[in-house]
Amino acid sequence: MQFTLEHTYGKARSGTVFTDHGVFHTPAFMPVGTQGTVKAVSQQILREIGVEVILSNTYHLYLRPGTEILNQAGGLHEFMGWDRPILTDSGGYQVFSLSDLRKIEEEGVQFRSHIDGSLHTFTPESVIDIQRLIGSDIMMVLDECIPYPCEKEYAESSNELTLRWAERCLNRFRSTDQLYGHGQSLFAIVQGSVFGEVRERSAHTLVDMGFEGYAIGGLAVGEPIEEMYDIVALCNDLLPREKPRYLMGVGTPENLLEAIDRGIDMFDCVLPTRNGRNAMLFTQHGSLNITNARFKNDFTPVDDSCECYTCRTYSRAYLRHLFQSKEVLGLQLATIHNLYFFQWLMRSARQAIALGNYSHWKEEQLNSLSQEIPVYS
Amino acid sequence: MQFTLEHTYGKARSGTVFTDHGVFHTPAFMPVGTQGTVKAVSQQILREIGVEVILSNTYHLYLRPGTEILNQAGGLHEFMGWDRPILTDSGGYQVFSLSDLRKIEEEGVQFRSHIDGSLHTFTPESVIDIQRLIGSDIMMVLDECIPYPCEKEYAESSNELTLRWAERCLNRFRSTDQLYGHGQSLFAIVQGSVFGEVRERSAHTLVDMGFEGYAIGGLAVGEPIEEMYDIVALCNDLLPREKPRYLMGVGTPENLLEAIDRGIDMFDCVLPTRNGRNAMLFTQHGSLNITNARFKNDFTPVDDSCECYTCRTYSRAYLRHLFQSKEVLGLQLATIHNLYFFQWLMRSARQAIALGNYSHWKEEQLNSLSQEIPVYS
Repeated sequence: MQFTLEHTYGKARSGTVFTDHGVFHTPAFMPVGTQGTVKAVSQQILREIGVEVILSNTYHLYLRPGTEILNQAGGLHEFMGWDRPILTDSGGYQVFSLSDLRKIEEEGVQFRSHIDGSLHTFTPESVIDIQRLIGSDIMMVLDECIPYPCEKEYAESSNELTLRWAERCLNRFRSTDQLYGHGQSLFAIVQGSVFGEVRERSAHTLVDMGFEGYAIGGLAVGEPIEEMYDIVALCNDLLPREKPRYLMGVGTPENLLEAIDRGIDMFDCVLPTRNGRNAMLFTQHGSLNITNARFKNDFTPVDDSCECYTCRTYSRAYLRHLFQSKEVLGLQLATIHNLYFFQWLMRSARQAIALGNYSHWKEEQLNSLSQEIPVYS
Repeated sequence: MQFTLEHTYGKARSGTVFTDHGVFHTPAFMPVGTQGTVKAVSQQILREIGVEVILSNTYHLYLRPGTEILNQAGGLHEFMGWDRPILTDSGGYQVFSLSDLRKIEEEGVQFRSHIDGSLHTFTPESVIDIQRLIGSDIMMVLDECIPYPCEKEYAESSNELTLRWAERCLNRFRSTDQLYGHGQSLFAIVQGSVFGEVRERSAHTLVDMGFEGYAIGGLAVGEPIEEMYDIVALCNDLLPREKPRYLMGVGTPENLLEAIDRGIDMFDCVLPTRNGRNAMLFTQHGSLNITNARFKNDFTPVDDSCECYTCRTYSRAYLRHLFQSKEVLGLQLATIHNLYFFQWLMRSARQAIALGNYSHWKEEQLNSLSQEIPVYS
């Protein structure tokens, strides 16, 4: 993997990540394909939307279809018919949020599957092995995901464990090789809750180890939004300029614009896909719930400035009808629109950075987004 | 609407139907878009599959979104973003199968909505008015759909009512005009259960009235398959050569090939879409249930001779994974494959008729289809 920084504006950056499955441009938003599919859309549609990189979840893929099948298929790219870059998380977050967590120890974490209750263990070494079998272009280290709020003392001791795990991941990564003929790289995850000192200790230690990219984890878990932005700014100041920076699990269009302004290059979030399936559509002028009765005879597109397939072809009234009738096509069209909107937002941010216009453009967008078409749900 | 007959082979026919929304070639299979969407696929995908005409259901559209919204939209084509031909049934079949049927009288049929229990009436006149508001290219008359088995006496008296209703539909059709600038035509429906005499009386009377096309209704409702084929053959011999013939609600690939052999031009059925959503896939070598464990590491396409998007892009193992994981993409990919298979079957039948090779080709297909990849469900 290579990363080239192309433009900066203040702390905001635009660049390109080069992988053996092609490039993606930053700032980048990665749609979430939890189970080897971005919910409700085909890989062809993802390409048409302009998606350059997706995220998939190690925890889910490990449980189903399992690494044996992924290995026989020749890796996840082959299995799912997606030849562009894939990033996988380490599975840590899902173990802490989805499974019936059993035990966290120095060695790793023992958990029960949310599907059938079966008992499993993730260690720093095993999550690297699993991601080797998945064949993702970018792999993530195993980390402990702590809740918010938490005591500083707990954040500190947890962080030390996460740092020891990061080193073990890196050792395993360096002592193993890719399986499918394309390169893989490993990103670290800065933890430390909302405690500046713990974040500093985390970032310094990880940077010294020398990863190919750095994520900021443990945010957007309930802390005040300004606190999140402060931690993002703090971490970015400690991370090397020449490596990509990835804010995990974030967020709203507003969050993305603010985080870009503080130096973030990559994002992932279920928001556009999950909200779309719940009839919530993002537009440049705020979000709307398409099931609202006032759309029943509104024959305009969801967003008349949007060029996605949904807006080019269908009306709000038709989308409302699909959701009222519980038709699968409603899920698809809403997902297409929301993903397109997030891609548009990232493309536009890139352009504004390149043009030296990011601050002004961001303020315009934030104003427009907060004009808020009322959401009824 | 115009119909030109291009080739015949025995009783099998190939031709072209010309409408103001373009042509469709016969034998034609019409995917069912009950609520103004062919379930699980977009209109763009229907075009890519090569679908030339779809069916939509008057009963469902009347209840939701309702004729007022369809009228404001400028008709169903505009509402759903589909500019190719649409045929609508009269709603009769759904009244008899879906709703809480209240009363059938000379005037029409009173029923309760399956959605909210509200009370409604369909008359021969109102179903024409509704189909004018929908704006379908081909409209159907209101008929009474009787169950199988039924007494001949009941079939006779019901048939007389259906004939009186057909005449009232035709009068209403002739005394009203299209609403959206494109022509609409009206097809009659031959009824009479499995009683040859009643079918004859029905066909003769309807042909004398002079419709633009003729459907055969009341079949595939439980009668022995040979009886269905005999009635189809009988009716076709009574119907005018120069008008399209439509066998309603049929059927399996085998049914289609046999009915074409007896002179049918048009079909509709939920089989490819509904079975697809239930993981049942049609292939030239029989059908398969993709959730079966033996497909878990089968990395070949569903059908390696199929050129659909699903078969060009994904493996059986991936499709199985999608169904096991209850992912929406599984519904889409299965629907795409099945619809493509039915379109392929119709294209191939047309070609065999044109080449004077239909009997031989049909036997080959029937042999291949019955090699039956075992279905586990």
